[in-house]
Amino acid sequence: MNLQTEHPSTLRKLISEGTLTGHTSGMAKGYIQANVVILPSAYAYDFLKFCFRNPKTCPLLDVSEKGSTHFPFYGKNANITSEVAQYRVYRYGELVESPVNIKHLFNDDMVSFLIGCSFTFEHALLEAGLPIRHIEEEHNVPMYVTNIPAAPSGQFSGNITVSMRPMTMQQAIKATEITTHFKNVHGTPIHIGDPSEIGIENITQPDFGEPVTIKENEVPVFWGCGVTPQSVALDAKPELMVTHAPGHMFITDVPDSQLSD
Amino acid sequence: MNLQTEHPSTLRKLISEGTLTGHTSGMAKGYIQANVVILPSAYAYDFLKFCFRNPKTCPLLDVSEKGSTHFPFYGKNANITSEVAQYRVYRYGELVESPVNIKHLFNDDMVSFLIGCSFTFEHALLEAGLPIRHIEEEHNVPMYVTNIPAAPSGQFSGNITVSMRPMTMQQAIKATEITTHFKNVHGTPIHIGDPSEIGIENITQPDFGEPVTIKENEVPVFWGCGVTPQSVALDAKPELMVTHAPGHMFITDVPDSQLSD
Repeated sequence: MNLQTEHPSTLRKLISEGTLTGHTSGMAKGYIQANVVILPSAYAYDFLKFCFRNPKTCPLLDVSEKGSTHFPFYGKNANITSEVAQYRVYRYGELVESPVNIKHLFNDDMVSFLIGCSFTFEHALLEAGLPIRHIEEEHNVPMYVTNIPAAPSGQFSGNITVSMRPMTMQQAIKATEITTHFKNVHGTPIHIGDPSEIGIENITQPDFGEPVTIKENEVPVFWGCGVTPQSVALDAKPELMVTHAPGHMFITDVPDSQLSD
Repeated sequence: MNLQTEHPSTLRKLISEGTLTGHTSGMAKGYIQANVVILPSAYAYDFLKFCFRNPKTCPLLDVSEKGSTHFPFYGKNANITSEVAQYRVYRYGELVESPVNIKHLFNDDMVSFLIGCSFTFEHALLEAGLPIRHIEEEHNVPMYVTNIPAAPSGQFSGNITVSMRPMTMQQAIKATEITTHFKNVHGTPIHIGDPSEIGIENITQPDFGEPVTIKENEVPVFWGCGVTPQSVALDAKPELMVTHAPGHMFITDVPDSQLSD
């Protein structure tokens, strides 16, 4: 079985059965993978409004009906309570559990959100011959909390988080051109160059993920990061919040090409 | 005083004072005008979700905080209770009043939505030398209810409404190319050609607005229409809903160029 070429529904079934347990990077090539945020309905309106107001960091792909385990567009036959390989459960902002399904937690009052992930545009950058250093170095992308405030919505507020990929300035311009067409997965960079301009003091010490090599002729290129909605939601300390575990994304039924415009 | 070149804030002040009472077509050239929907907060989440799910007919520009009379981005110093020249007030889906302000109705529980309007892309079409027949014939654009269902959200559901502009097929292709860049104001056409394919039986009898001349070498070109969210919201029969009166739009502080991408 080649996990790269399997259909999303097959992979989600294997995940649901516990046969597939690792991260989903590189799986179901050509299909959109998404960040997951699940909240009690009392938070749904403000969180939806937060996504609308912060499209570069929180590009909303889909939202479930209250209590529904599937999605209108991105996973009609999916079950969000079991088809993510690993979940994180937070109560009042504290991680309390990392289960392989959330059937014991899910109830009729919960709303699930799918948020775009940079996996989608990384394919397009690689195909254009641009370097993705963290893939070359085989580890997670470096992520940094900036001093740029997100547009607040109700109890959701905080600074945005960015991911970073080093490139030459020529490559950064090409990458900006390409990501213009991926508005639903973070779009163009938030910043190019001097990290201190966006409040990053030490580029060698990311807040999440792992550092990457920045070559002498390269500049850091920063994109909005899907960690932002999670971190902002956690700051609001909801009584219950469920997310995917990092790298263990929800594999949707929708091809990457649908997100390019 | 030239209403075409006045700043939006000046015009809104004149509207608020009752000095300016007519429709706003052609005013504050170069600034975005918007459809207005105001609802009790109990409906806000489902309506926001409806806009997210129907971007071509309900392109959401901004949403107020609950009880706030201004908008975070499109009218920071505006007052939505008095700066629209004429309002429509509906109770349980019935028109009950067409006041010049809504100060007597507005309360801390209401949420205001601004939705993109085709005035914005019409400027761009005209500048490209494309015909806008209803402007040539100096009346309102013809609008039709289709048989295409909107993606439902909670109690909001129904078929989408389209506006129609006749053009040659060559012009229709050019118009599609141009409106690709106006995703926040309806974007590309919903349909080009045979009206019966989208459930329109008689093109000479629009459901709203007035009919226009279609020349022999022309095809009708249909765009998603901002009447859709109003009609869908009315079908849901909320106890209270306020909108702008047709043509009496909310003039925002944001230039048209911000909506092109």
